[in-house]
Amino acid sequence: TSTAEETEPTSPAHTSSFFSPLDTFQRRHIGPSSDEVVKMLAELNYPSLDAFVKDVLPPSILSPRNLKVAPEDGLTESQLLDRLKTIAKQNRSDLRSFIGCGYAGTITPNVILRNILESPEWYTSYTPYQPEISQGRLESLLNFQTVVTDLTGMTIANASVLDEATAASEAMTMSLSTLPVARQKRPGRTFFVDKKLHPQTIASIYSRAEGFGINILIGDALDIPSIEKLGDDLIGVMVQYPATDGIVNNYSAVAEAVHNLGAPLSVATDLLALTLLKPPGEWGADIVFGNSQRFGVPFGYGGPHAGFFATSEKHKRKIPGRLIGVSKDRLGGRALRLALQTREQHIRREKATSNICTAQALLANMSAMYAVYHGPRGLKGIAERVLGLTKTLERGVERMGFETVSKDGVIFDTVLVKVPNAKSLLTTAEQNFGTNFRLVDENTVGITLDETVMMKDMVNILSALNTVALSPIEVSERSLVEITQELGINTHQPVSIPEQFKRTTPYLTQPAFNTYHSETEMLRYIHHLQSRDLSLAHSMIPLGSCTMKLNATTEMIPVSWPEFNSLHPFIPLNQARGYTQMLTELEKDLSDITGFAAVSLQPNSGAQGEFTGLRVIREYLKDNGQAKRDVCLIPVSAHGTNPASAAMAGMRVVPIKCDPKTGNLDIKDLERQAEKHKDFLAAIMITYPSTYGVFEPEVKRACEIVHEKGGLVYMDGANMNAQVGLCSPGEIGADVCHLNLHKTFCIPHGGGGPGVGPIGVTAHLAPYLPGHPLVATGGEKGISPVSSAPWGSASILPITWSYIKMMGARGLTHATKITLLNANYMASRLSKHYKVLYTNSNNRCAHEFILDVRGLKETAEIEAIDIAKRLQDYGFHAPTMSWPVPNTLMIEPTESENVQELDRFCDALIAIREEIRDIEEGRQPRVGNLLKNAPHTQKDLLVGEEGWGRSYTREMAAYPLEYLRERKFWPSVTRVDDVLGDSNLFCTCDPVIAEED
Amino acid sequence: TSTAEETEPTSPAHTSSFFSPLDTFQRRHIGPSSDEVVKMLAELNYPSLDAFVKDVLPPSILSPRNLKVAPEDGLTESQLLDRLKTIAKQNRSDLRSFIGCGYAGTITPNVILRNILESPEWYTSYTPYQPEISQGRLESLLNFQTVVTDLTGMTIANASVLDEATAASEAMTMSLSTLPVARQKRPGRTFFVDKKLHPQTIASIYSRAEGFGINILIGDALDIPSIEKLGDDLIGVMVQYPATDGIVNNYSAVAEAVHNLGAPLSVATDLLALTLLKPPGEWGADIVFGNSQRFGVPFGYGGPHAGFFATSEKHKRKIPGRLIGVSKDRLGGRALRLALQTREQHIRREKATSNICTAQALLANMSAMYAVYHGPRGLKGIAERVLGLTKTLERGVERMGFETVSKDGVIFDTVLVKVPNAKSLLTTAEQNFGTNFRLVDENTVGITLDETVMMKDMVNILSALNTVALSPIEVSERSLVEITQELGINTHQPVSIPEQFKRTTPYLTQPAFNTYHSETEMLRYIHHLQSRDLSLAHSMIPLGSCTMKLNATTEMIPVSWPEFNSLHPFIPLNQARGYTQMLTELEKDLSDITGFAAVSLQPNSGAQGEFTGLRVIREYLKDNGQAKRDVCLIPVSAHGTNPASAAMAGMRVVPIKCDPKTGNLDIKDLERQAEKHKDFLAAIMITYPSTYGVFEPEVKRACEIVHEKGGLVYMDGANMNAQVGLCSPGEIGADVCHLNLHKTFCIPHGGGGPGVGPIGVTAHLAPYLPGHPLVATGGEKGISPVSSAPWGSASILPITWSYIKMMGARGLTHATKITLLNANYMASRLSKHYKVLYTNSNNRCAHEFILDVRGLKETAEIEAIDIAKRLQDYGFHAPTMSWPVPNTLMIEPTESENVQELDRFCDALIAIREEIRDIEEGRQPRVGNLLKNAPHTQKDLLVGEEGWGRSYTREMAAYPLEYLRERKFWPSVTRVDDVLGDSNLFCTCDPVIAEED
Ligand SMILES: Cc1ncc(COP(=O)(O)O)c(C=O)c1O
Ligand SMILES: Cc1ncc(COP(=O)(O)O)c(C=O)c1O
Ligand SMILES: O=C([O-])O
Repeated sequence: TSTAEETEPTSPAHTSSFFSPLDTFQRRHIGPSSDEVVKMLAELNYPSLDAFVKDVLPPSILSPRNLKVAPEDGLTESQLLDRLKTIAKQNRSDLRSFIGCGYAGTITPNVILRNILESPEWYTSYTPYQPEISQGRLESLLNFQTVVTDLTGMTIANASVLDEATAASEAMTMSLSTLPVARQKRPGRTFFVDKKLHPQTIASIYSRAEGFGINILIGDALDIPSIEKLGDDLIGVMVQYPATDGIVNNYSAVAEAVHNLGAPLSVATDLLALTLLKPPGEWGADIVFGNSQRFGVPFGYGGPHAGFFATSEKHKRKIPGRLIGVSKDRLGGRALRLALQTREQHIRREKATSNICTAQALLANMSAMYAVYHGPRGLKGIAERVLGLTKTLERGVERMGFETVSKDGVIFDTVLVKVPNAKSLLTTAEQNFGTNFRLVDENTVGITLDETVMMKDMVNILSALNTVALSPIEVSERSLVEITQELGINTHQPVSIPEQFKRTTPYLTQPAFNTYHSETEMLRYIHHLQSRDLSLAHSMIPLGSCTMKLNATTEMIPVSWPEFNSLHPFIPLNQARGYTQMLTELEKDLSDITGFAAVSLQPNSGAQGEFTGLRVIREYLKDNGQAKRDVCLIPVSAHGTNPASAAMAGMRVVPIKCDPKTGNLDIKDLERQAEKHKDFLAAIMITYPSTYGVFEPEVKRACEIVHEKGGLVYMDGANMNAQVGLCSPGEIGADVCHLNLHKTFCIPHGGGGPGVGPIGVTAHLAPYLPGHPLVATGGEKGISPVSSAPWGSASILPITWSYIKMMGARGLTHATKITLLNANYMASRLSKHYKVLYTNSNNRCAHEFILDVRGLKETAEIEAIDIAKRLQDYGFHAPTMSWPVPNTLMIEPTESENVQELDRFCDALIAIREEIRDIEEGRQPRVGNLLKNAPHTQKDLLVGEEGWGRSYTREMAAYPLEYLRERKFWPSVTRVDDVLGDSNLFCTCDPVIAEED
Repeated sequence: TSTAEETEPTSPAHTSSFFSPLDTFQRRHIGPSSDEVVKMLAELNYPSLDAFVKDVLPPSILSPRNLKVAPEDGLTESQLLDRLKTIAKQNRSDLRSFIGCGYAGTITPNVILRNILESPEWYTSYTPYQPEISQGRLESLLNFQTVVTDLTGMTIANASVLDEATAASEAMTMSLSTLPVARQKRPGRTFFVDKKLHPQTIASIYSRAEGFGINILIGDALDIPSIEKLGDDLIGVMVQYPATDGIVNNYSAVAEAVHNLGAPLSVATDLLALTLLKPPGEWGADIVFGNSQRFGVPFGYGGPHAGFFATSEKHKRKIPGRLIGVSKDRLGGRALRLALQTREQHIRREKATSNICTAQALLANMSAMYAVYHGPRGLKGIAERVLGLTKTLERGVERMGFETVSKDGVIFDTVLVKVPNAKSLLTTAEQNFGTNFRLVDENTVGITLDETVMMKDMVNILSALNTVALSPIEVSERSLVEITQELGINTHQPVSIPEQFKRTTPYLTQPAFNTYHSETEMLRYIHHLQSRDLSLAHSMIPLGSCTMKLNATTEMIPVSWPEFNSLHPFIPLNQARGYTQMLTELEKDLSDITGFAAVSLQPNSGAQGEFTGLRVIREYLKDNGQAKRDVCLIPVSAHGTNPASAAMAGMRVVPIKCDPKTGNLDIKDLERQAEKHKDFLAAIMITYPSTYGVFEPEVKRACEIVHEKGGLVYMDGANMNAQVGLCSPGEIGADVCHLNLHKTFCIPHGGGGPGVGPIGVTAHLAPYLPGHPLVATGGEKGISPVSSAPWGSASILPITWSYIKMMGARGLTHATKITLLNANYMASRLSKHYKVLYTNSNNRCAHEFILDVRGLKETAEIEAIDIAKRLQDYGFHAPTMSWPVPNTLMIEPTESENVQELDRFCDALIAIREEIRDIEEGRQPRVGNLLKNAPHTQKDLLVGEEGWGRSYTREMAAYPLEYLRERKFWPSVTRVDDVLGDSNLFCTCDPVIAEED
């Protein structure tokens, strides 16, 4: 078999043996049936799929090789689950981990597990860029923000960041941005990091500091003179509360000192602890961040979880990441939306200090719902129990004659114990008591307790310690109860907290956190929010560059398996053999697919992959005596994260022009710039096929030009869905490439995350892949970690693994062809009604295409946004709007949509074109028409007096096409006012409005 | 602790130890919080919950004992899943079963598993009695009916029956009903059953035949003279196609002979086989039935699965069970509904020959969706593969020198092999090859293949046989491939079927089965249907007598575990130790709760429980020389299933009056009738609290009266939710009682099933509990089985087990009190606006109450149905309508609703009362008003010209109360025309309309 020739060219794979099972996956993943493919090809005048593909890809790009992904025809759905279960069973999910260090056990309420994490209506939706059809998750994310602001005592919080480590890095760079410009530029600029932050947080800060030329000083923040010594070089200080050694320190004097030096104080913290402790916002913190994992999100061997990030009123417009804000809709009703979109990278580009795009919406929603489910009293009860257990443990340990690090300190959930030989104790604890402790150093173990801890865990923990105790004690239920009695704690009498640390301000008093405490009410709340949101469970989401393909159930099922989700990220590798096997296989397959030598799965998003890839390039250059090379060429068509990532990696961005006619890279300009910067040329970043949706013919030439000048080629793999099996970044000439597993490889978008952005690299770059301070991973000269966990969001990687294994080499390749076919089929239909902006010389687009609607402004006063909003009335999510070209629409259908759905979408756009023609030709007014008033809600059409007074009927508003009478999805608010929302920035639940409106 | 006194009377349970985990379940299951309970009690003027309870229950009834259910405070949600997993692991889900005998392995498409079986929107809905808010599942059930009619070649099919065994019984009694009355009454009436039906089918037919006085003759139907001998005594003949020995016989001559005798032919069959075989409808069958399990529903250790039942045009109005029919709505659009409701038992009562009420809707939907997912080509492919594998197996077996039973016959999926010692081969197969065969007799094993069979299974099966083969063969992948080559079969060339058996008519050509074959489209179809249906995920469903309480996620999770759902019902008991433990514990707890000595979990529904209980009573009487006792006293207020069940058990029903004022049993009438029938008195059937929603004070006296006359007391436990922990049938004086686990014990209603109707009995009745021919269960003198599987719907019993274990004795009891409180709170609010029909002398109802709206007919021409339909506009499912009293509404809130929801529902009913007042007082017309036009759909309000011309605004139609602006659920059709539907009975998908409308 060869890629170019197939025996049955319109179907993905065929079972060779009579015995082969029939539950094959490819035909379920791929929308069009063989018959439909034949029809579509005929429409486009091609005799075969391969003849078509030859017109789409430049011949120089088409790869001669077949993918190695085995089995070639893929595993069936049941084979896949069998095989993965066998692998998963090698993970020791039977052991209990009290390792802490930023991750704590949690009980995910099953009503949340099943109705959010396992619900396609929640996990398949996209980032809520279209607020009118996203009010459900916007509401939930606003709850998340409220949880964070209330508990931290800050004014504003974002709707999640990737994890605690990136949050720390964001805190550092945001600290920098709060300073006067002159001070920002001081060569001695230094960020002071308390030594008692979690080690992985510290390690990853280095990764970010380097690009910004920031010095990191690790020290003891309580030693205030050591901070003061830095004077104007001080960028900011970071502490952790409670610290990694479990101790809750009073940092108010530190805050004062830092403020006196004109710098901000950043505080890493734990939301559960803050239900009892005085919040950082009350003792001087300027930035507060952390991980919300223990609010109902399983360990997942490191992720995904939602990092959180909050700041004060003063800095609120500097906050990185996405922010949900409260605004109003056209009818004046409360409406939520993404606020301050103008801050996003595609606007600020190379001046950006943050590249965050995909975040952790799904996990933030889970954590928010956890708070909704428990309410303030429930959360406090959990925290009090954890604290009580920890004090009991501490007392038990002391009785055994051990010294604890927290001796005289205030603690919350962690006890550090001095032992003769920590490693050997860990072995005993694991082997004889099924229990993992943290290895702090040779003579210290750490034990962190959480809401899952039961009496039998306490007995196991203390029994393990007893084996090396100077004076062993009786360890039994009875003796533990005695200790609590001695401590004077019981269910009605929690541990008392010293006044100076004690929280006195109430939190989560809003209705959302005090209403849904029965499972019935919780279920209804979740379903109600869900009912407001459009997801892939409703209709296609043709977002160009986002690849909203099927997230198959079989791929999602393993995510809920305890074998994958119950593992702490820092357990010994021999407890995670199942993960090791799965990750190794995945790296191998992704290397094959990208044509690279090695892959790192650590980055948690595409943007993070970019940053990681550029850091790897810089490290490689430095290691090869080329440290001065710092110029990064970036075509003007690039995604905003590219220049932002380059800037963050400490590069100077030089834009490269594109040909306004073809959209292709201006090779002349590239040659010019490469020549001009040849001594400093580090890299070029290119997206392939380009962000304009075209396979550029000269891409290999572009790579050569850069290589000739000593630079490396970074490929943005967001459009990899057009390449898989047909060509590869490695063969085209790239040195690094990131993949968005949440695009090409079926990880669901979750309403704005999770994502995974692995990078593939050539052999010479492999040694520099990122490492981790606590778990062996990455290259031998690996850069500092870019995520908190060694393999980033490990627990969702089975999704991609499963997709690849079920598709097999043939299925993957076939899917790519269908992706191209679907896009060209649509482009062909729509080109009769709209201008398709760019195609190749054969008049073919790649996997996506841009509709140019700019002319309609003049003829009908219609802009892309009006079409986008009117599409909602037709039951569709808009295409990508105004990116990469302002006032255009970029459409990407993916292979998972069948021809009926493509036709429905085309019908909708064509019908809208006719509605525009009515305006152009004066049959409809230029204001108050169907498009300008779009989207229409039920209330818009039904509330108020019967007099209507519009130039169209209600029926025209609601049911412009026949299929809508059968399946109609309704926006829940009318068009949202962006300006109002941004000028009156309000980003938490309103205690009154939230429930009444 | 005592039931009457609690330390913390408003909350269910309190954790005694500081170490107790906090994820307690009771407060999640029970709607009102402690604070709310205090408020509600104050509303009703009670100082405490117990003071309130004393006003509700007659003192003579209140039990002095506490439940024994341990732990008293219940397990937490995570403890529960841990404990159940430990139990479940004792089930040998690692073994593969090829036992067949009516159950075949199947692959449940994961998109169906997750989005139907695991989706609360599907599983929490009720039987679609309110069609306007049930079009989704009605559509899916119509698909099910179409699958059955198309594949069987019959005209009409119902929307599922409980299982194959009950279907067979229904076939027999329906056969009887097709005969002239004189013939029906012949004392020698005999039903001829072919000996090659599955043994459990035959066994259970006996159970039903007895009540009808039908003789059963087991014989060889192909021996036509043996049938003809019966002459006019012949009621009907039943054969199986393919038969239990795997052979496909040609029964057309049998059909002809039976028809010549004026009797109908019933055929048990297999839907998958019918994709290849000439359907029974084409060779003379009058009734066709079977089990649709292998269409995507896991074994589940016996159930639940959907039995199917079809018949010909001629008999279509005689078909038992629920039937979905096509009709039109007020606006003339296509609308589905339950057809021929007038046939249901509550109308025909003691003349009924079927008592089926709860059926298997959820499973029927899964099977229908399986057909939608695969389509006709997919199903045929599966069948061809199964047949090919079976022929391969047969050839392999023959090569080994074994004799097969099918030697010269046509087979589909089963091979019976003659072996020296079947038992010892079974042991070898299990222990060395992980494989279960069927033990047919001492020298015969049966092997049934299915879509899950893989090459390695074939190798294991043949290798096991090889161990006892005369001439062992090489068993390997290679040798198996050779056999297929020898047979000339491959993926493109299926096994050829002899002309006379070959199917030639197409099937499933309707759009529904040819459109949704990609997972994306399938997901959208499922979600689209789901979006039309109101379920507990939306709002309370206050159906009196139905107990629509929370079906908690934690209870549902184990249902998907392979340890529970992958077991064949006829495996050896030592492979199902987990089930044995769970079932034993459940029986013990249910015995404790009901106050009985023993429990049978076999009946698949409440009605089936009634039948079983009455059969047990009769068997007991017979065994004690009281066979003549056949009178069953039944109050006129009884549910229709009661007289139907009594009739089916061969009893003469004597109605007992109720006091029209109090609703209580007329004790005088009871005494009179008991005396009158004393020599023949077998039993009384009473519901407690009564179907009027009142704890009758004289119930103990009623029991005594019957006992004094030598009769036994059957208690209908549908209202057990009002008793648990406060009183019990056993203590009240009943001898038997059924429970509806799908009411009181949290098994979800699934849109009309599954259900489980266990019976509890006193010690003297225990020996008669139903047995099973293949698996040891039941009493030593057990009656014939009433279900196909020994423990009925075993795989959903973990739901009830989990509920009981998480609530604990205290939680269960507390829930009952809250159920009573919720009902009385609502009754109290509503009594200011409507008449509450019955209460006790303290003015208290039990767990439900009846609103009498009969007066409104005169004042406003409004009937119960108008209020029910208008409630839909308010986002609510109607209460139980016109039962047990015509033109009333019976409301049951359950303990799972909190006070806000109760208030919303009351607000809605009160607002409707004001709308009625507008009619009464002439502000609104008597026709075309808000109630008569209800429910209003979106299209009703939005389609058509802007001129509206109604006496109310669109806003009044859609948003009569404020909460609807936030949460609005829309009916998808307007009021459905029942008369039209019944007169033009049409019960399958229309090939054209189905998709276009
Ligand atoms: C071309 C391109 N590059 C990079 C990204 C950033 O990826 P992520 O959102 O995973 O950070 C995107 C996201 O849409 C993209 O379209
Ligand atoms: C009082 C009563 N008895 C019996 C039944 C029949 O139970 P099932 O539907 O489980 O057959 C019902 C059903 O609602 C009922 O309300
Ligand atoms: O379903 C009932 O008949 O109550």
